[in-house]
Amino acid sequence: MRTRAAVAIEAGKPLEIMEVNLEGPKAGEVLVEIKATGICHTDEFTRSGADPEGLFPAILGHEGAGVVLECGPGVTSLEPGDHVIPLYTPECRECDYCLHPKTNLCQSIRETQGQGLMPDGTSRFSTLDGDPILHYMGCSTFANHTVMPEIALAKVRKDAPFDKICYIGCGVTTGIGAVINTAKVELGSRAIVFGLGGIGLNVIQGLRMAGADQIVGVDLNPDKVPMAEAFGMTDFVNPSEVEGDLVPYLVNLTKGGADYTFDATGNVGVMRTALEAAHKGWGESVIIGVAPAGAEISTRPFQLVTGRVWRGTAFGGARGRTDVPKIVDWYMDGKIEIDPMITHRLTLDEINTGFDLMHAGESIRSVVVY
Amino acid sequence: MRTRAAVAIEAGKPLEIMEVNLEGPKAGEVLVEIKATGICHTDEFTRSGADPEGLFPAILGHEGAGVVLECGPGVTSLEPGDHVIPLYTPECRECDYCLHPKTNLCQSIRETQGQGLMPDGTSRFSTLDGDPILHYMGCSTFANHTVMPEIALAKVRKDAPFDKICYIGCGVTTGIGAVINTAKVELGSRAIVFGLGGIGLNVIQGLRMAGADQIVGVDLNPDKVPMAEAFGMTDFVNPSEVEGDLVPYLVNLTKGGADYTFDATGNVGVMRTALEAAHKGWGESVIIGVAPAGAEISTRPFQLVTGRVWRGTAFGGARGRTDVPKIVDWYMDGKIEIDPMITHRLTLDEINTGFDLMHAGESIRSVVVY
Repeated sequence: MRTRAAVAIEAGKPLEIMEVNLEGPKAGEVLVEIKATGICHTDEFTRSGADPEGLFPAILGHEGAGVVLECGPGVTSLEPGDHVIPLYTPECRECDYCLHPKTNLCQSIRETQGQGLMPDGTSRFSTLDGDPILHYMGCSTFANHTVMPEIALAKVRKDAPFDKICYIGCGVTTGIGAVINTAKVELGSRAIVFGLGGIGLNVIQGLRMAGADQIVGVDLNPDKVPMAEAFGMTDFVNPSEVEGDLVPYLVNLTKGGADYTFDATGNVGVMRTALEAAHKGWGESVIIGVAPAGAEISTRPFQLVTGRVWRGTAFGGARGRTDVPKIVDWYMDGKIEIDPMITHRLTLDEINTGFDLMHAGESIRSVVVY
Repeated sequence: MRTRAAVAIEAGKPLEIMEVNLEGPKAGEVLVEIKATGICHTDEFTRSGADPEGLFPAILGHEGAGVVLECGPGVTSLEPGDHVIPLYTPECRECDYCLHPKTNLCQSIRETQGQGLMPDGTSRFSTLDGDPILHYMGCSTFANHTVMPEIALAKVRKDAPFDKICYIGCGVTTGIGAVINTAKVELGSRAIVFGLGGIGLNVIQGLRMAGADQIVGVDLNPDKVPMAEAFGMTDFVNPSEVEGDLVPYLVNLTKGGADYTFDATGNVGVMRTALEAAHKGWGESVIIGVAPAGAEISTRPFQLVTGRVWRGTAFGGARGRTDVPKIVDWYMDGKIEIDPMITHRLTLDEINTGFDLMHAGESIRSVVVY
């Protein structure tokens, strides 16, 4: 079949909107009509050429929602008409990782996914001239239709709006999951969130859900304050307004250091600050942000020997097929908010505007609605 | 009263054996006759001048065992005749740290302890001329008699031999505790221990107690192998004999990386190797060793984002008054071994020989018996 897609032809260039060919689903695969997709920093990390592992030409996008149109042979958990959220971290429920209680990093199709291919080692997308176009993060939600492995689709309720729940495919789950699954924040905790963008705001609402007593937000941009406060931030710190070192300031503000800190900036210097602002004896710091290629974190080992713990999280530690439907329920039940974060709605033809808005710091999330 | 002690007069000099004055215990303090003391690398770290926070003159030693001779006013948990192990990490059971479930780092007397003083801000030790001599780590077990706060003494059974259980005051508890309290190693785990000295061997026997399936020891000195094997090591790796990078070699040896890794070297490069040899998704690395002043650990944040956890431990995460008596029981019940690690017995007059043996790599533990 043919579908319309925004194609990343080469690194650093705007996406090109075009008709492409899409092969039908093979065994274990599913054809999905994408109804809406968010535009995430990770898409930009690849589009811009900053990602050393980026491959081109490819159809980017990994934060979508849509409807199952057709199932390939052997697909048992989905049928046409099901509403689904694509998962860049699949959940096969059979590999050593899925069977281990401490991780969500299913490895069953990691190798081909990293190569921009379906599990059989080929791509379903091609140009009208027949040249292959690569998949991206196993999703390619910047196409109106895509083919995905069954194990990489979370089946969700049908009354949930696509243009909101698409955000659960990455940002919402990553932020809330970092709090709930990775840090396992306890009621009454004090926490610090570095970076009040699309991930940081979700960390904040995760902390509110978990019952944190103090939720400190740290950002250089004071324009982020009203939204962050609406999501649960109790204290705002602008590092440019703090005299002297930031760490002792934050330690003092949190009465000895935070029980949990979260980096949602991707800046390795901030990651160090986040660790060192965690409470001596028990404070845990969680890295969410993706750092530039080659960048390294560092600290004195004394910081760890005196009880701080340094962790990271990917997709909020969520097992997608199991956890994403629950988060959709939380949204529909009003336990979490998404609507205020969807600041811009675009058509596929306007998708490059979404990247411009991101760079200008004007959007929390731009969503393309097909 | 007077007692004999090995005094560190100044950094970098051998200890001097001399008579010193010792004031009796004040409120909440206890006079202890030290019967035996181990000589630990931390004593050497201070004696040599490498510790930037080292203070002189002081009576070093923090790994002892002895008998209570006299209790100051208000002491309720001990009485003369009780056998005790001094605790450089006290357990007041009242401070915010003692009341927090995740840490053992009691802070109630930290400030004065760090200044080489008793909690009232004075020293009990002085020269025969009346010049004050500082305490060390709140213990000063290189004196035949010492005064300590009640909260820094673990009461232990009377049938346990002082010249063995003194080692529980630091090395044994640090190594075993890192496994049991800090890492919480599960049955069937794979583990790697870097450094097969006095701490590493105790990590190994802790892993054996915890039921680890694979216990890999890493050391540049093959002479360590027989003892490490006797304590439970299943595989030995000499980095000087590995071609290429050590991390992939260890990852391969442990079928994808170790569930738990332990640094018992204090070398920040080894700490990085230990983290990166931990299993993707769930491997945890525990820093036990004390690094040189100013040294920093570093890695790519990707190592954490893909599921590795970086921790540290002090005194094996043990709450001394609660946990040390249990470890003494384990020794007496034959659950753990200590005797083979006590490689040298010395008199107080021979104490500098103990440091020489440590430098020559000839001892696991030298113990001074009074």
